[in-house]
Parts: sequence; C-alpha cells; structure tokens
Amino acid sequence: MRKAGASAPDAAAGRNETGVSTDAFVVFTPSGRRGRFPLGTSLLAAARSLGVDLDSVCGGRALCGRCQVQVGEGVFAKHAITSSASNLSPAGEAEATCKARRRIGEGRRLGCQAFLLGDVVVDVPPEAQVHRQVVRKRAEVRRIEVDPVVRLHYVEVSDPLLEAAESDLGRLRAALRGQWGLEAELLPDAPVLRALQGALRADQGRITVALREGRQLIAVWPGFRDSAHGLAVDIGSTTIAAHLTDLATGEVVAAAGAMNPQIRFGEDLMSRVSYAMLNPGGATAMTEAVRQAINQLAAEVAGEAGLAVADILEATVVGNPVMHHLFLGLDPTPLGVAPFAPAVDEALSLPARELGLELNAGAQVYILPCIAGHVGADAAAVALSEGPHLGEEVMLVVDVGTNAEILLGNRLRLLAASSPTGPAFEGAQISCGQRAAPGAIERVRIDRETLAPRFRVIGAEPWSDAPGFPEATRRTGITGICGSGIIEAVAEMYLAGILSADGVIDGAKAALSERIEADGRTFAYRLHDGPPGIRVTQNDVRAIQLAKGALYAGARLLMDRLGVEAVDRIALAGAFGSHIDVVYAMVLGLIPDCDPAKVSAAGNAAGTGARIALVNAAARREIESLVRQVEKVETATEPLFQAHFVEAMAIPHKTAAYPHLSKAVALPGRGPTADAGGEGPRRRRRR
Amino acid sequence: MRKAGASAPDAAAGRNETGVSTDAFVVFTPSGRRGRFPLGTSLLAAARSLGVDLDSVCGGRALCGRCQVQVGEGVFAKHAITSSASNLSPAGEAEATCKARRRIGEGRRLGCQAFLLGDVVVDVPPEAQVHRQVVRKRAEVRRIEVDPVVRLHYVEVSDPLLEAAESDLGRLRAALRGQWGLEAELLPDAPVLRALQGALRADQGRITVALREGRQLIAVWPGFRDSAHGLAVDIGSTTIAAHLTDLATGEVVAAAGAMNPQIRFGEDLMSRVSYAMLNPGGATAMTEAVRQAINQLAAEVAGEAGLAVADILEATVVGNPVMHHLFLGLDPTPLGVAPFAPAVDEALSLPARELGLELNAGAQVYILPCIAGHVGADAAAVALSEGPHLGEEVMLVVDVGTNAEILLGNRLRLLAASSPTGPAFEGAQISCGQRAAPGAIERVRIDRETLAPRFRVIGAEPWSDAPGFPEATRRTGITGICGSGIIEAVAEMYLAGILSADGVIDGAKAALSERIEADGRTFAYRLHDGPPGIRVTQNDVRAIQLAKGALYAGARLLMDRLGVEAVDRIALAGAFGSHIDVVYAMVLGLIPDCDPAKVSAAGNAAGTGARIALVNAAARREIESLVRQVEKVETATEPLFQAHFVEAMAIPHKTAAYPHLSKAVALPGRGPTADAGGEGPRRRRRR
Repeated sequence: MRKAGASAPDAAAGRNETGVSTDAFVVFTPSGRRGRFPLGTSLLAAARSLGVDLDSVCGGRALCGRCQVQVGEGVFAKHAITSSASNLSPAGEAEATCKARRRIGEGRRLGCQAFLLGDVVVDVPPEAQVHRQVVRKRAEVRRIEVDPVVRLHYVEVSDPLLEAAESDLGRLRAALRGQWGLEAELLPDAPVLRALQGALRADQGRITVALREGRQLIAVWPGFRDSAHGLAVDIGSTTIAAHLTDLATGEVVAAAGAMNPQIRFGEDLMSRVSYAMLNPGGATAMTEAVRQAINQLAAEVAGEAGLAVADILEATVVGNPVMHHLFLGLDPTPLGVAPFAPAVDEALSLPARELGLELNAGAQVYILPCIAGHVGADAAAVALSEGPHLGEEVMLVVDVGTNAEILLGNRLRLLAASSPTGPAFEGAQISCGQRAAPGAIERVRIDRETLAPRFRVIGAEPWSDAPGFPEATRRTGITGICGSGIIEAVAEMYLAGILSADGVIDGAKAALSERIEADGRTFAYRLHDGPPGIRVTQNDVRAIQLAKGALYAGARLLMDRLGVEAVDRIALAGAFGSHIDVVYAMVLGLIPDCDPAKVSAAGNAAGTGARIALVNAAARREIESLVRQVEKVETATEPLFQAHFVEAMAIPHKTAAYPHLSKAVALPGRGPTADAGGEGPRRRRRR
Repeated sequence: MRKAGASAPDAAAGRNETGVSTDAFVVFTPSGRRGRFPLGTSLLAAARSLGVDLDSVCGGRALCGRCQVQVGEGVFAKHAITSSASNLSPAGEAEATCKARRRIGEGRRLGCQAFLLGDVVVDVPPEAQVHRQVVRKRAEVRRIEVDPVVRLHYVEVSDPLLEAAESDLGRLRAALRGQWGLEAELLPDAPVLRALQGALRADQGRITVALREGRQLIAVWPGFRDSAHGLAVDIGSTTIAAHLTDLATGEVVAAAGAMNPQIRFGEDLMSRVSYAMLNPGGATAMTEAVRQAINQLAAEVAGEAGLAVADILEATVVGNPVMHHLFLGLDPTPLGVAPFAPAVDEALSLPARELGLELNAGAQVYILPCIAGHVGADAAAVALSEGPHLGEEVMLVVDVGTNAEILLGNRLRLLAASSPTGPAFEGAQISCGQRAAPGAIERVRIDRETLAPRFRVIGAEPWSDAPGFPEATRRTGITGICGSGIIEAVAEMYLAGILSADGVIDGAKAALSERIEADGRTFAYRLHDGPPGIRVTQNDVRAIQLAKGALYAGARLLMDRLGVEAVDRIALAGAFGSHIDVVYAMVLGLIPDCDPAKVSAAGNAAGTGARIALVNAAARREIESLVRQVEKVETATEPLFQAHFVEAMAIPHKTAAYPHLSKAVALPGRGPTADAGGEGPRRRRRR
C-alpha cells in the first residue's frame, strides 16, 4: 500500500492512464486523520496506516465486529469531500454473519470488510475505539480511558515446514509480525508454551493469544476468542471489594465484596500487626486468609458474569501498607514500629499463581505502588481516581480509616501524609460504637429546644420519630452507633448547645432534658433508651475530638507546607466519606473550610483507582511516576503537627476560619441563632 | 578520587606545596593497566577505577579475601618504576584476621587493605580475577572463562530514617549504588522481599545479596557470605549428569549421575514419545520423573559438597529436544512426527520452582536453546564446549545417540543436522546387545589366522585369554555386547576377512573356524560360548551398517553443503565417542577420513557446555546468537542424503577415500596384507 499523507482530496490524486482516479480520499472522525489510498483498500487497513484508533481482535477477518464504523452520506464541506456508503464495496456474507452475531447496528459497516471505491467520511464510534472512555457516574472526576494492558489477538499461524520446522513460538511470532505488525518478545513460561502447543493443533493454527503490554504472551486459546477480563481488588482492613472488568471496554461486569477474614486476627491494623509480631506464623495465616478471600470473590464475580476464574487475565491490587504487605506475604511488623519502613513501595507485577491467586494460569497481578510507609497503594489509587495532581485547583483528598491518608496539592506539587486518627471514625473506641452495619445509628438530629433526639438506623428507612419505625427496625434492632452517627451526634450536641466548644458536655443542661445524665464525674447524652441503651459519653466526645484533631492537623500541616491558607476542593474517600454529611464534618472541624459545593464524597476511590490501573497502562506509568514525585510529610516527627493537633481539638476549631461554614449553618456564638427547626444544617426534613 | 589516566610515572605527578609527591603510580599486571592515584588510595579502589579485573564480594571490608594481590619488589624497567611492598601501608589486624581465615599466601596483600604510600607494581593472581579461567583436562579445547551470571555482593544497608522511611528495597538499591556503583533494577519476587526484610533486621543491615545478570535480586542472606553455587544438568535419554559448580571459580565441587527414570516409560526417545502419545498424562508422568531425578541429584551433589540445595542459585539444563520438552513440561509428540516442530527452541530463563526444582527459592534455570527440532540444546551445548564455530579449521562434531547430531564448519559458517542412526550404537537392536554396563563386552580382537576372538568386558581388567579373567568376571558375568563392542567386533570381522566389504558374513570361512556358524540362511560369528552365548549375526551387521551409513551420510551431506571434501578435525562427543576406537570408527566408515591425531573424544561435551553456560554469561549470548546463525539441514527431505546413505552401507565405504586410514591400518584388498599379529589397528597388546 502506498504510504498515505495528509494530502487534500484534490491534491496528488492518483489517475490511471485513462485519467480515471485509482485512489480515494478517506477522512476518519472524530480524529480528523485523513489520507488517500488505492481503491480496494479496506477501511481497517486505511485506519491502521493513519494511526486511527480503530479496534480489532480478529485482525480483519469479520469475526470480532470490533472495527464497526459509520459512513457519512453527503457533502462534508469542512473536509471538501462528498461521502457516500456506495463509495464502499457492498457488505458480503461474512459481514452479514458477523453483524447478526455481534448485534451491530444497521447503518454500520465492518471496517475490515468495507473496501474503498470512492471518497468517504468514516466515523469511528466510541465502542470501536481501543482507547475508549469509560462512563463514570460523577461528573467532576477525571475520565477513565481504556489503554489496554492485556489485548487479545487472533492469528492464523502457519504449519511448520518440513524443510525448516520452525518452533511453535517462532511461528506465532512471525504471525504476529505479519498479521498485526507486532514485534513481541513473548517471554513465555512453560505452561503457556504447553497451551500454545495444544491450541495450535486444535484448530489448524487458528488461535487467539493474550499479550500483556504488547510483549508478554500470557494466554492462548484455540480458535477465535473475544473476551478478556480483569479483576480490580481493593483490600481494606474491614472489607475486600472486587470488580470484574471487561479489559476492552473498561466496564464492570460484576462486583462483590466480603469481610476481610483477617478480622479474626485483629479488628484494626495495629492489632493485626501485633498478632504477626506475637505469633510465629501469624503473618502467614493472615496472608493465606486474604488470598483465599480474594479467590472466593474472584469465583463469585466470575460466576455472576457467567465466566470462569480462568477467564481473568489480569488483576490489580490496592491496600494500605499493612494490607499490601500481608497480601504479598511480607512481614507487616516493621510497619508497626518507627520508622515504619515498608519492605517495598514501588509497583510490582507478579504472576498471580505465585501470590496464591487462582486466576488464569498466566494471569499477572499489578500491585500499585505505595507512597510511603503509612501512605499505601490505596492512597496511590485514590490519587489515580481523584487526580489531585492533574488540575490547577488546590485539592485535598482524605481517605479515612484507622489512619487518615491525606493528599494535598495540584498539578505543580503534591504532598502526602498519614495522620493517626485512630478507629473512632469507624465506631471503634466509642462506648456504644459499632461498624456500619444494619442496626447502627447513622444519622442524628437533636431538637434545639427540647434537646430530644431523632435518628435513623442502617437498614431502616424511617426516622426514629416517624410512623413505622418500630416495624422497620424489628429485624435488625438498634444495636449501636456507627462512625457517621457519632459524628452527627457530636456535631448536633454542639449545635444544640449541649456541648461546649471545648468539647465538654454541659451538666447544667440536665435541668432542660432528662436526656443529659450524670456519668460518674462527667455527663452523657442518651440517644436511645434501649435495650441496649445508646449514649454519647464524655469519653466518646474526647475520642472524636482526638480523631478529628489528628485529621485536621494532618491536612493543616500539608497546607502549611504547600503555603496555602485554604483549599479549593475536597474529596472524601472511602465509606466514611460516603456516609458523612459534609457540613457536619466542617461543624466538627474534621476538614478545613471549603465551599460545600466543592466537597464531594469520592466513594471507594481506592477501588476506582484499582479499576483505572486495571484497564489503563498509561495510568500505571502515571502513578509510578507520581509516587516518586509526591512529597511525603511525616506527621510523627513534625512539631507543627502537635501544635495544630492541640488547636484542632476545639469544635469546630480554635483558630481556623470557616467562612463557608458560617454561611451554611448557624454556629453557637459565631453567628445567627441556631436553626430553629432543629434540623440538620443542609437537609430538609423528609418523612 | 581523581580520575586516573594512563599517564607515565614522571608525567603529571602530583606535588604538594613543599614539592613532595602527593600521589603514586600503580601498574597492575597481567593487564598492564596503570594510573596515578593520591597517596592513601586503596589498591582495590585503584583497580576499580582502572577497570582492572580484581574480585571482591565484601566490597573492601577485609572479609572475603578475594582481592588478594602480589606486590612486586625491585625495578620494573618495562614500566619505568621501582616497586616495593614498603610503598604500601602495612597490614593491620583486619587483614591479618582475614588472611588467617581465608588461607592467603604469605607474600600476598589484600587490595582493599593496602593503601598507596608510593609507586608499586601489583600482580593480580588468577584466583583474584572475576573473569578467571577454568582449568580443563583436554588441551585442544577452548578455555572456559568465568563471567559470572550470579554474583554475591556484601552491603551494609542503612537504617530507615524516621523522616523518610525509605523501603527496604530502596535502601538496598541505594547501598548497591553507593558501595558497588551498581544501578540494579532488582526485580524482586515476593519471597525474596520477605527474605530481605528478615536479613536486614538480623544483623543491623549487614547482608549479602545475590544478583543475577547484575540486575535481578534472587537471594539475600544476613551478614557476610562468600559461597555461590550452581548446577549444570545434562539430561540424556539414558543417564542424567549433574555437576555442582562454584559460580565464582567455575570449579566442579561435586558431580553425580543417575539413570534417567523415564526409561521405565520407554527405552529410547521414540518409545517415550509414543508413550506420551498413547497415554493421557504420560508426558506429565515423564516430566515429573525427570524433575524428581534432578532434585535427587541436586541433593546428592549438595550433600557431597557439604552444602544444602538452597545454596544452589542457578542451574543450566541441556538435553535433546525430547528431553528438553519433557523437562519443561511440554508435549513431546510433535517431535515424533514430521515436520518435527518444537514448541520452543530459543533459550529460556525460568524460575527453578516453576519447573519443580527444589533449589534456592530464587534460583533460576537457564535452558540452552535448541538448534532445530532434531538438534537440541545438547547439540548447542556441544557446540559451546567444542567451539567448531571459533576456528579456521573445518571441524566435524558428532554426538551419537539414537539420533546422531552433527555439526560441521568453522568460524565462517556452521551447519547442523540430525541423522537417524537408530539405537544400534547403543547396543539396542543387536541380538546380544546391551547398554554399556558391567558384564558387557566392550573390546574385541580376532586373530587374523585362527579367527579366534579375544575380548574385554566392562568391569574386568584382563582380556578374555589372559590369566585371571574368570575370577575378574565372576561377579558381573559376561552378559552381552555394548555399542563399542559391536563396532569393534564388526570391524575386526571385516579386517579378519570374515566379513565382505558388502557386510556379508562369509559362510565359506566356517571351514576355517567353528566360530562361524550357520544361522538360518545366513551365518553368525560366535564371540563367547556362554551361557549366555554371544554372537554377532548377519542382522546385527546389517543394523550396524544402517547406523553407520546414516551417520556417515549425515556428515557427508553437510560436507557437500559446505563444499568441502575432507574435514580438518573431528570431535566425537558422548559416551559412544569416549569408548570407541577412532580407527575402528574409520574402518567401519562411521566418520569421514581424518588424521587420527586430530580425532578426539570430547567426552560429555553436552555436560561441559552446560557447565560453560552456567558460569559464563557471555557464553549464553554466544550460543543464543550461534543457534540463530547455524544453517539447519534437514536430512529427511534431502535426496542426496539417501544416495550417500546407500553408498555408505559398504565397509568402510564404497567410494570415499580414506588416505589417513590406509596409513594406519591394512584394509582388506586395499593395501598391504592384514596385520600379521591379528592385533587392533593402533593398539599394542597389553597384558
């Protein structure tokens, strides 16, 4: 084929001896790439020659239907071209069969079966692009583009010749070169070579291969195959989430979560580290537990999607440093004592079977890099998902667990720290605290005058003062208070005047409401009579103050380092961020002041980051590069952190200004009187 | 340190303000590298700076003793220098301790502990060179140089700092950079990271690491360690040989052999291929058998050397294509049917544990490349050992098994072929044939007049007509005739006139000796009365004719292709080559004519090639490059091969000239009358 240039349609048009044009002009949209090609050239070949992003698995054999395109009709003045579907060869039987089987729209053509008879404008729809974009629910976050790490290639491998019986691998390499223009090292291991032998002989050399990063042969199947899946795994201390993803489209085809079985060795990270420290073989037992849980999740999501675990060709794993180490079979104890040095923090690609994962025999696992000993691969994944390093705005990203992982910055500079919030935000170390589970109080309102509480529990729709509440909670009961519940409770106690800015429950208010009761030498606020009785004690308030003080101090320390007094945008990642009410978080002073419209819950941003890394090779390079550039700030050794911490114990904060908060809610002693309705600061009553 | 140049001693000498020299001139021998260094520079540092090949494991801490050197005394006119041991700092306590522990000669200094006080000539003895040469028994073969694939490096890794707790791996990388000037990727797997964690904390960061190819971290130990071993494995169809080798010196520290347990699945290659073809799971069973045998050999040689299998850091494996495939867990059946395509023929490096080998957890296995579907990694190893591609002489290398693998050429061009000799040379398909084992007849002489035989059996020193023979063979008995025995028997029968040039046993000779007896419609020659009676039948002669015809035809075909009428040198590899008498081989016409002084038995050349590849990284690149350049000649499809084969059936050969042979032995009807003494053609009688 003649090498195509970006010539104008009338320029350099080929003419045969009788002056009839022997080539045609093609414009691809949306890329705008264009060129002149000899009549008879397929659109797929033209697209490849021009570097147009047009997908194919079968390599032009009308099998996969991936190269579907839409041909324009009419005059395209912008391109100075008159396009018509009749300027392409008509669809033959192979195309009709493929279109029926692959459910391709009526007006569409297969690029590999449509040959040029004249000028055309050809639109490549999103589903025909390799680098297609994945739809995300939240508009404000970065778009995910597919940049496949693992791709399937159908090839027809020639039989060996008697004169020179080239090896199976050598002939595959030649076929990839000839049919795909790929120069692949292949780097096979023994099992994939064994599979290659069988596949080549099963269907006369027609095979589909999976290439990882365009160079490593990781799987082989006889015949044509059009489905490649991957698993994104987010190992949290409490739960493990797995997303089964189509590696070509980036779409999640099944998702599942499970409790982290390591909980039986210790509720929080430090108790698991202690378990490993004190019990020989303890770390190994925790490693086996998490790997087994991932295998079960893999089987579950594969089953749900009608696939086998052997269909999973790639996995990504994120987790905090302790989870990361335990998954890898590393000793987590150095992470539990200063100076908290991880064994490894760079990204790793390791065979799944070496990590005890039962996926495809050739599957590889990409473990995202950690940022530091306390800021793990989960934080790296959060960065990938939320992209604080991409924009101009100064963005604060907070992922709260036992430690809060904090990122702050913009495209010029990104800082990271971990702050020892403790588990109070997760409902631990709270007298009536519990994990977020059915029966837990998750929302709290306190009447500003009567000081009477209303609340909602997980698993029940009505509020506690609404009809139907007893029935709705009959099954779950009312068992405790979870992280978001305790935050709202403490914030409401403050807004209702029960709590001073210093965090003291005002015993004088016991005269106004029997809800305020003596508790030794301090007081407590009774939320629910029980059984079990659910109260917020002075110690509970102190635990929340410590936690929020640590979180704020961490964020503030990074703001000092970055030299900013305010942040433009805040993303709250994790389950905590999804359930917490942003304004309550500011009332309590968990986070610095920010326009509530620019504070968002990022959901499972770590899991999203794992999904991005699963389908996008460039994102892996991006995060590997980013973690090297991130400035790590160690809170434990920073005197300023202690100072910020002490100041941040006050509610909302002793010195920080909260101009946005003051607009959103009446703060005691800071502005207009408290919201008369006793409602939440932003929400209206719903019944 | 100032960068050293190749300046003359009097040129550019540094002087301080008072005119006293501030640097010294150093000449290293045998390299001749020289340079000027500031006083106080260690000889090791000077050597490194000049690129002198001076070994070290401890990196200059007086632990390993590898950098021992000999300082010259007196005037070295050639270098215009007066050298004296007193021009170096005196040996301190560390050096004395090391020299005592490492048994270093009296006159020697440790390069890392000797600091320059004046000019010196320093000799680096062979044992202090990284690229030292391994002593080989045979003078004519190429020298083996050590070019380590795996090297040990002692490093002292700093503790992590609280402010920036760098990862264990990151600090190791920094230590390798700072203390060794190495920029290593490290590419660790999870178990070696786990080992790194433990080792770093066992001895305050003092560890020894094993780096493969200067980039991959494969093993870690706490403290200083100075011993790295590897295993060279030659998988033959009949026997497996293992050589445990010191990776630093290249010396074999222990060797062992075992029967290939695959024999229970089939005596020869084709029967094993058939077994795999006919029995589901048959190939897997053979794979497991050979891997288990290698594990046993590894344990045996390690035990013999006082080591553990975990001390084995690297292995190399060679074998014919069927052995190669079965070891890798690949299906050998495509090798049994035309067009004999291997699954893979390029060199592979795979983790030992993935191949079922129980060596060090991080050990890697290098599998030498195959040349073609019939010319395996064993032939590649033979090429590495014998070096036909290195010289000007046209060299023929023959490795005889069920197939003869044949290499022919010189440094300009190398050809390879495999010839289907069948197993007759191994004693199979011979009526009284057996493998070379105690009790087998291995040498035969026939009296030219009486036609009476004499023979020797394996395991007994005396000939059969000597005193003490009955006693010597009482334990083993006389059980059959092995490959070299049948060759000598047939050749002697020809030389004694019992056999015609066409290979017919002459029944008329029965009148001269009762040893020639009727055997159906043909005749046989009785070597031993028995029981069991041992005879050479007409069919046996035919089998040897077919085998030698195939071998000769293969060699001849390559000579045609290369365009030569004679070869300059012949190497006979394998057990066959070691036991066969060269002149008998020419009498029979197995090999083309050649000066007997230039025909050598190469012994287990495949095993030697495996040893070379084990200790020499450059040799790996050499053989990988060579197999791509070798011209493969397929005998099966070559009409000329058939023609040569038919002609080569005659004894010694219908048309080929044997000028050298005619000088060495009287051939019937070709020269002077047969050797009157009835002795072997070259050997004198020994009693």
